[in-house]
Amino acid sequence: MAETRQWQLASRPVGEPTYDDFELVAVDRPEPGPNEVLVKTLYQSVDPYMRGRMRDAESYAEPWDVGDPMQASVVGEVLESNSAEYQEGDVVTGDLLWAEHAVADAGDLQEVNPDHGPISTALGVLGMPGVTAYWGLNDVCEPKPGDTVVVSAAAGAVGSVVGQLANLSGARVVGTAGSEAKVDWLTDDLGFDAAINYKETDDLSAAIDEACPDGVDCYFDNVGGPITDAVWPRLNVDARVAVCGQIALYNATDVPTGPRKLAKLIESRATVEGFLVSDYQQRWGQALERLSTFVRNGDVQYRENVVEGFENAPDAFLGLFEGENIGKQLVNVAERGE
Amino acid sequence: MAETRQWQLASRPVGEPTYDDFELVAVDRPEPGPNEVLVKTLYQSVDPYMRGRMRDAESYAEPWDVGDPMQASVVGEVLESNSAEYQEGDVVTGDLLWAEHAVADAGDLQEVNPDHGPISTALGVLGMPGVTAYWGLNDVCEPKPGDTVVVSAAAGAVGSVVGQLANLSGARVVGTAGSEAKVDWLTDDLGFDAAINYKETDDLSAAIDEACPDGVDCYFDNVGGPITDAVWPRLNVDARVAVCGQIALYNATDVPTGPRKLAKLIESRATVEGFLVSDYQQRWGQALERLSTFVRNGDVQYRENVVEGFENAPDAFLGLFEGENIGKQLVNVAERGE
Repeated sequence: MAETRQWQLASRPVGEPTYDDFELVAVDRPEPGPNEVLVKTLYQSVDPYMRGRMRDAESYAEPWDVGDPMQASVVGEVLESNSAEYQEGDVVTGDLLWAEHAVADAGDLQEVNPDHGPISTALGVLGMPGVTAYWGLNDVCEPKPGDTVVVSAAAGAVGSVVGQLANLSGARVVGTAGSEAKVDWLTDDLGFDAAINYKETDDLSAAIDEACPDGVDCYFDNVGGPITDAVWPRLNVDARVAVCGQIALYNATDVPTGPRKLAKLIESRATVEGFLVSDYQQRWGQALERLSTFVRNGDVQYRENVVEGFENAPDAFLGLFEGENIGKQLVNVAERGE
Repeated sequence: MAETRQWQLASRPVGEPTYDDFELVAVDRPEPGPNEVLVKTLYQSVDPYMRGRMRDAESYAEPWDVGDPMQASVVGEVLESNSAEYQEGDVVTGDLLWAEHAVADAGDLQEVNPDHGPISTALGVLGMPGVTAYWGLNDVCEPKPGDTVVVSAAAGAVGSVVGQLANLSGARVVGTAGSEAKVDWLTDDLGFDAAINYKETDDLSAAIDEACPDGVDCYFDNVGGPITDAVWPRLNVDARVAVCGQIALYNATDVPTGPRKLAKLIESRATVEGFLVSDYQQRWGQALERLSTFVRNGDVQYRENVVEGFENAPDAFLGLFEGENIGKQLVNVAERGE
């Protein structure tokens, strides 16, 4: 019987995850049942939200069980199909597993048209991160021309799209990122008005002040922690904060106190709103249509940081917390048609 | 020339304000100019927001200057009028001074009809605190029948009205307060479903859990700090937090970190919104009309904590931070017609 490999959760990390929390296991390759499809993974996504699913805590997503394969969005190739919807060789995307092969119900997959661009974009700018950026910015932040929009983790898969969309909205766009290469990409290529390398900045507050002389109208927060602390006092009247991620705090073992600067919200009458892209299922297509137009005509650019080889998937994931990726972090698991 | 007395800001407090920060000064009684009115203070309001104005920091309100009289809402009697709108003996309310007498432009005053109830209510349930409660609850929190509404400082001037209005909306209402007398008032008289004496509770989180078995849909926050920490993890999906005050933190000299639990907002897709009652000027009358009906028919009850004598005004103010008041904290400065 054919085998496949999958990454299983070996243990629940305390603090920063390590390689020991992952175990690469060979298992029998699953066979598709009625209306199911066997998918060979070509690209696997790793995303910051996965850290939450390694935790044994009730949240918006079920925690992963120790000893089970972990879940991931993948782009893959159909090897066998028991569904009229798909045939061998089709490229599909869906929420599958950290695995070289997986079966899925045909209804849980979407087709990826290779003629529309690199298939990997279905996991990035034309996938969940892009849609997150689109609705988080347009539905929660609602930038208007002349607004100052700050986005943290601006060189990431979500942040880079947020900044470019905000730019298209006529806003002044300021990003924070963790390397000179990232900062250069933001200002030289993506049209950001200013970008701050927080790792090389002694006084983050002064840097935000300088980059945002008219204060901050929208803050798209991917990171939390000290960067958010620095942005907070500069929120303008009626500012909107979209809380998308808090990657700076995901590995924290102790978050003893809660919000200690809410008084600023009174003064500014600001709104802070958390959101989940899964609440935008009904408007997913609308975002994708816009994004693919923007990508085609060059208004939205993207980068991918591709780690080669399925055995290196944990590296790709752990790299997210080190800020190693410019743009979307992916694992290239296999080639098409091989 | 006739004299009057006023309280001036003697120094900017660092941390908890003390008596030394206030100075009682005798000055010439001011004379009304054209279209101005001389008002004798009958009741002076003290409010937590005044702490912010003692600080030398840009905020929604101008900081008070050291050596200047401090400002306050008062209910007073017209002694002299150079305006056709008011005549001697009228009872008016407006933003005047911590002073026994003050002049004001007639256009900055509102008439108080003594036949409608105790004139002091124009500083409490039928004044700024009542309107704050009304719009903060109905415009920011928007409780629906069956929702669980938590209000902190629930026995205060704002909180007590919030809880009763939420009760009228068909919500389950839970309050926090700092004494058994307050807690009894909330549950026995005001219709709160549960009330927590946070000073006598070892485990605030467990107390919130017990009082809110279905989680928290609306949180009307007057205090911030540890009580807010305890409510935060219990926010339900689509919860609304109205940030009205943060009295637990107003005297803090060091608030080193900002919001450290925003990740909860992602999970719950909750909205946290600061607001200022001054933004509701256009809808002030609408709130007052409803509130006065509720007060007349007994649906909304109120209490006042009246400190006698103008020389004791700083006691009244400092008492706010000790939680001394049940209901609206006032200073009775003089009697009408004397």
